[in-house]
Amino acid sequence: MELGMSDRVKPLVEKVRAMVRDEIAPLSAEFDAEVGKHPTGDRFKHTARQLEILDTLKAKAKERGLWNFWLTGSEKGYGLTTVEYAYLAEEMGKEKIAAEVFNCAAPDTGNMEVFERYGSAAHKERWLKPLLEGEIRSAYLMTEPGVASSDATNMALKATRDGDAWVLNGEKWWASGAGDPRCKVYITMACTDPDAAKHARHSMFAIAADTPGIEVLRPMQVFGEDDAPHGHMHIRMTDVRVPAEDLILGEGRGFEVAQGRLGPGRIHHCMRAIGQAEKALELMCRRALTREAFGKKLAELGANYDIIANARMEIEMARLLCLKAAHMMDTVGVREAQPWISQIKVIAPQVALKVIDEAMQIHGAMGISQDTPLANMWTHVRTLRLADGPDAVHRRQVARTELKRYMNQQP
Amino acid sequence: MELGMSDRVKPLVEKVRAMVRDEIAPLSAEFDAEVGKHPTGDRFKHTARQLEILDTLKAKAKERGLWNFWLTGSEKGYGLTTVEYAYLAEEMGKEKIAAEVFNCAAPDTGNMEVFERYGSAAHKERWLKPLLEGEIRSAYLMTEPGVASSDATNMALKATRDGDAWVLNGEKWWASGAGDPRCKVYITMACTDPDAAKHARHSMFAIAADTPGIEVLRPMQVFGEDDAPHGHMHIRMTDVRVPAEDLILGEGRGFEVAQGRLGPGRIHHCMRAIGQAEKALELMCRRALTREAFGKKLAELGANYDIIANARMEIEMARLLCLKAAHMMDTVGVREAQPWISQIKVIAPQVALKVIDEAMQIHGAMGISQDTPLANMWTHVRTLRLADGPDAVHRRQVARTELKRYMNQQP
Amino acid sequence: MELGMSDRVKPLVEKVRAMVRDEIAPLSAEFDAEVGKHPTGDRFKHTARQLEILDTLKAKAKERGLWNFWLTGSEKGYGLTTVEYAYLAEEMGKEKIAAEVFNCAAPDTGNMEVFERYGSAAHKERWLKPLLEGEIRSAYLMTEPGVASSDATNMALKATRDGDAWVLNGEKWWASGAGDPRCKVYITMACTDPDAAKHARHSMFAIAADTPGIEVLRPMQVFGEDDAPHGHMHIRMTDVRVPAEDLILGEGRGFEVAQGRLGPGRIHHCMRAIGQAEKALELMCRRALTREAFGKKLAELGANYDIIANARMEIEMARLLCLKAAHMMDTVGVREAQPWISQIKVIAPQVALKVIDEAMQIHGAMGISQDTPLANMWTHVRTLRLADGPDAVHRRQVARTELKRYMNQQP
Amino acid sequence: MELGMSDRVKPLVEKVRAMVRDEIAPLSAEFDAEVGKHPTGDRFKHTARQLEILDTLKAKAKERGLWNFWLTGSEKGYGLTTVEYAYLAEEMGKEKIAAEVFNCAAPDTGNMEVFERYGSAAHKERWLKPLLEGEIRSAYLMTEPGVASSDATNMALKATRDGDAWVLNGEKWWASGAGDPRCKVYITMACTDPDAAKHARHSMFAIAADTPGIEVLRPMQVFGEDDAPHGHMHIRMTDVRVPAEDLILGEGRGFEVAQGRLGPGRIHHCMRAIGQAEKALELMCRRALTREAFGKKLAELGANYDIIANARMEIEMARLLCLKAAHMMDTVGVREAQPWISQIKVIAPQVALKVIDEAMQIHGAMGISQDTPLANMWTHVRTLRLADGPDAVHRRQVARTELKRYMNQQP
Repeated sequence: MELGMSDRVKPLVEKVRAMVRDEIAPLSAEFDAEVGKHPTGDRFKHTARQLEILDTLKAKAKERGLWNFWLTGSEKGYGLTTVEYAYLAEEMGKEKIAAEVFNCAAPDTGNMEVFERYGSAAHKERWLKPLLEGEIRSAYLMTEPGVASSDATNMALKATRDGDAWVLNGEKWWASGAGDPRCKVYITMACTDPDAAKHARHSMFAIAADTPGIEVLRPMQVFGEDDAPHGHMHIRMTDVRVPAEDLILGEGRGFEVAQGRLGPGRIHHCMRAIGQAEKALELMCRRALTREAFGKKLAELGANYDIIANARMEIEMARLLCLKAAHMMDTVGVREAQPWISQIKVIAPQVALKVIDEAMQIHGAMGISQDTPLANMWTHVRTLRLADGPDAVHRRQVARTELKRYMNQQP
Repeated sequence: MELGMSDRVKPLVEKVRAMVRDEIAPLSAEFDAEVGKHPTGDRFKHTARQLEILDTLKAKAKERGLWNFWLTGSEKGYGLTTVEYAYLAEEMGKEKIAAEVFNCAAPDTGNMEVFERYGSAAHKERWLKPLLEGEIRSAYLMTEPGVASSDATNMALKATRDGDAWVLNGEKWWASGAGDPRCKVYITMACTDPDAAKHARHSMFAIAADTPGIEVLRPMQVFGEDDAPHGHMHIRMTDVRVPAEDLILGEGRGFEVAQGRLGPGRIHHCMRAIGQAEKALELMCRRALTREAFGKKLAELGANYDIIANARMEIEMARLLCLKAAHMMDTVGVREAQPWISQIKVIAPQVALKVIDEAMQIHGAMGISQDTPLANMWTHVRTLRLADGPDAVHRRQVARTELKRYMNQQP
Repeated sequence: MELGMSDRVKPLVEKVRAMVRDEIAPLSAEFDAEVGKHPTGDRFKHTARQLEILDTLKAKAKERGLWNFWLTGSEKGYGLTTVEYAYLAEEMGKEKIAAEVFNCAAPDTGNMEVFERYGSAAHKERWLKPLLEGEIRSAYLMTEPGVASSDATNMALKATRDGDAWVLNGEKWWASGAGDPRCKVYITMACTDPDAAKHARHSMFAIAADTPGIEVLRPMQVFGEDDAPHGHMHIRMTDVRVPAEDLILGEGRGFEVAQGRLGPGRIHHCMRAIGQAEKALELMCRRALTREAFGKKLAELGANYDIIANARMEIEMARLLCLKAAHMMDTVGVREAQPWISQIKVIAPQVALKVIDEAMQIHGAMGISQDTPLANMWTHVRTLRLADGPDAVHRRQVARTELKRYMNQQP
Repeated sequence: MELGMSDRVKPLVEKVRAMVRDEIAPLSAEFDAEVGKHPTGDRFKHTARQLEILDTLKAKAKERGLWNFWLTGSEKGYGLTTVEYAYLAEEMGKEKIAAEVFNCAAPDTGNMEVFERYGSAAHKERWLKPLLEGEIRSAYLMTEPGVASSDATNMALKATRDGDAWVLNGEKWWASGAGDPRCKVYITMACTDPDAAKHARHSMFAIAADTPGIEVLRPMQVFGEDDAPHGHMHIRMTDVRVPAEDLILGEGRGFEVAQGRLGPGRIHHCMRAIGQAEKALELMCRRALTREAFGKKLAELGANYDIIANARMEIEMARLLCLKAAHMMDTVGVREAQPWISQIKVIAPQVALKVIDEAMQIHGAMGISQDTPLANMWTHVRTLRLADGPDAVHRRQVARTELKRYMNQQP
């Protein structure tokens, strides 16, 4: 169980860390400040400066070969293991736009994996190629407003066969990235046969974003923020016709596609959350050493030593757990690694939220304002306790795995 | 130690609860939706509809005699005890605009108390009267960006005597309500003698909001929200001349004014937080009973019974503690009640945050979106762990009181 | 909701506190040191010195009229309210033998209440009278080893009618106090009709401890301690004949008796736990002020200020909650007060355990040794998370009450 | 950072696990039941049966080559890495006498390491040899009753040079294992020069247990248990003459010896605690699946799924952290690994205590009784939060390391 940084990935980690710190971080605040400043007033359009920032950084990353790390085990990527990639994801987690700069951003990575593994030659040409080049972006339409999406067998958006096409009707929400005008394709789960066995009712479709009948109703907000121009969109489909060849992998095999997609993505999310936690701890320590009150450094006041120690210990443990889950993914496959992925889905955001919360607190009111990145980090990580299944569902999964070891056994 | 609802206050509580639920709540979302829609695009201007909503509701409240409850023990108010007022504050906490409707909103209540107790006749005429009538609003300028404001003796905004006026220079931030165009007066702490004894360096001033030299630099954001049009403003004062008679109570007595002001206000904040927690628990229960997943009501899944039970128990305890602090305020005075107020300053927001967080979680992604009030409640209550002193300062105060009992004693 | 100390009870509280501190505490360690020193080597016999200590203290308490406080609302006792008694229970919680000294010890108080309310004239003469005089002691046989006793309808010890007697067969354990040779009567729940409706299957019996067929199998240990000579005994009944007139209240009404018995007892337990928590906090503070390490008082090191502050806040809240539960008991009766009693059954031991744990920790290794009372307090209070129903059962009760408010309602 | 079980250690782990489960566990309860049954009534003497159990098991272990694993990196042991040994320690943690059976018990392992590294040839012959053979046992005398031993520079037991000997006077307590009649040697820290620099005041001595002047005052109890016949003894030294050649390593180098000794020992303790946590989780799961209440398996009630999931996740994280600390020990040495060892010293007992506590709770009253090993496990692990330094000291160490990274840096 090699969980350390391999010799192969170490120089990559160093290059990524340096580029995040020296080139991306300085432009990050400027990028954010441009949100909503498009001449049309449309928050879901990038300003020219935003595109310039992104394109310049992406070009640099590509040129340096720091690109598409996520494609683990593939000939097209670096052939990194998930453990190796995890270390890169941690670094990319430290700035909001960093993952995109290296073409490693959600939901594109998962969607690219879908196309790579299950897509037709046409899908690869039309969608995978420009995604790999960073020319377009994509969205993943899963969650629905009307049903408890934690139980994915509930998904109700309906696809009915009509000649050589499927006709889709229903609503999806939290389609992250669907606000971005560069987003050209939606991978969408739909119910193709409500009478089939529970896990054979759904199929996965690749749908061009500009297909008639697709309507973006509104951006969902996260603690009041719309995360423009990326956005988490609420989308309605009315008689949307999708060519039959854009049903991915096979009718009724939607869950198969979804499962394969989710494993690595969750690890990426979690390691980025660890990156955020590390950043918050650094901010906390710097503040503790530089700010004074009652004649002492904050570090010397209250329980701050204990808070810092607890943060360090919890980050270490959460990172090791993520690395172990990544290792399981690499060695026993996504299905067997599932309980480990559930574990980190619960732990990583929880630890990051706690560290960020304490970091905010030690910064005083500044900590929840726009003057540090902490407040934005907090709201972002808070979504991870719900995205891809709420904690409760993952805890249940972990407990079931545990109990199964003792079922039908004599005590 | 009578902590129950008195016969006197019970009908008031019922009227307030009914008005909040039946008249204010239905308009609350509409009020929020209007934010930023002023024709000029200025987020810090109310739309006509917003003013109409406020004015209509305020007129109704006034007409029904549901007005200025906060003025505890005074002839001008209801002469309610703090305990009695606490029950009203809990109800008013359930909707964001409710406290203003009953003319019981922060920071006006504290500022009115300052004018009532320490203001000159001119202050009472010019500021207190329209405040009591709900015609103008006010702000309280305390915290500064450059110093650790948890230790208020650090405040650096400088006031220099110049003839019959004081000249103020410096910055304040988190001036809540200073974004509102109706805000006409700032009660401001300034350093009048840096060489005096620690608690005699500062004085309190009443300053008209339109005094030359006052510049609103920007709104501070709370988790990305600017809370417009109320706002938490960052303000710079450059050679602001304040007439000598607007120094309140006396030179060097700023802390005396501040202390008297803070006690009741903290209790109000805390009881409103309890109101928010009750509201969140109600939303949690309703969701648990109506939403299904995996073939069961959410209530029956995971640890939801325990989560609900814990929420109920913690709310009960936090409310009782607030009521006890209020009782202390009523019976032994603000100074003696101080450690109790510190206790609730730590406890009430902490409990409310926990309950709201669980309520968000049980709502799935909807819980952090604009589709429930929970996300906004969470960010609002989170500020209370910092406003009027961070938790750490209050915990220290509680511990010191405790340890003092055993100092210089034989074990 | 008067939760304060009444004028009536205040002098009693002061007398009890003084007697506990000045007369009972100094003998407490000596009493403990005598355990197991009976000449026969039988741990479940008091030494002559132990009896002397108890009898002398009891005689003093009786003489001073500090006796049988628990008989709330009765002519035979002080007619105290439960709230008033609660303050006394807190003081009596501070030393292990204190409750017995004032004839207020469990399980006698509950058993006396059973006899007082539901007992026949013969029961009152034979058992209640000497119990009220402190001449004998009693036990309550409820929990059984073979069934999940948290669900009391499971109780399996069987009573079969045979002529003018019932014949009992089965096992009970955790019969607290049944080790004491002075224990003369067992109040015992038995199943009289397994085919009756769920809550009508059981009846309550008064059984003389020396009835043939009763066998004490062994003392149950609590973290290795047998709590001799009081003891928590595991008892087997083999063809134990109990006269029909010793079935209390009526056949099938065992739950009615049990419910009435449990309410006040739980409040007593909880308030004694609060007393223990206060004692632990005092020990913690004294240690923090007197012990030094790394050149500083322990109070100034680590998170000790926060630990002390948290302890103070949690004790305050837990006490207020207990007082509210007591108030509910006094005003709406035991059935309506049930959810409140469940709340404190969860909270009070939890808070006390946390405070005691921190107090142990600050004492270093001494804290878990025989050199402070803390270790014994900890194990004792730990039993309360299981006695009279584990936390989980009480949390469920609280949640059900909460959810019931919203059932069959439109959201 | 290879944290997995190596091919070399895997068969050893399997053999140890099997022997613990199949041969040691069945005799464990019998061993415990014999405590205090020595014909003389002396609790600190083994019964013949106890010695028979130990000797038979030890002979088997030795014969199978399962012996002295702890001697990591040495020619005399297996040459295991600390990581490898950690996996063995986890298995040995599952039964109280297991570590001794494999000659891997504290404090012998640490003491043997002292002799191995720093002892003279005479020490090796007289003490190390029989210790390695499991013929004698040893104790480590560090903590003192009169000083805050968390700051080891406080140690006050005095050694004065007198001719060719040192004369020791003072008290030590918590000398674990000093109750065992087989304990023949005490490694003891004493102050040899109170005026020297802080870390040069103390020296380490090897002292034969039967040296005149040594008096065992009493056994220290842990939550009422004396842990006989092992014992944690309170010892007084009065004019104890120790030959000068039994001062280990060199005058004033006591800390050097102590530091080298503590690192591996702490890892052993922590991994054994992990073993206990695993055992508790297994008991919890088995109980959850076999016990029923309210018509359901306990697993399906309350928050038990979440409790089980949390236990699994925390155990995984704690184990990984221990393994990482072991890896640091193996690769960067004990001094550099220190902050990692501090981390696990805080985490491992904390996690184990939580899991054991929940396991007790799900067992109902049985869980705190003698009918499961849980209560004894709990008290044992609770000592680890104090042994070798209380949590607070280790947290401080972790925080200092963290803050040091940012000191003297520009933010």
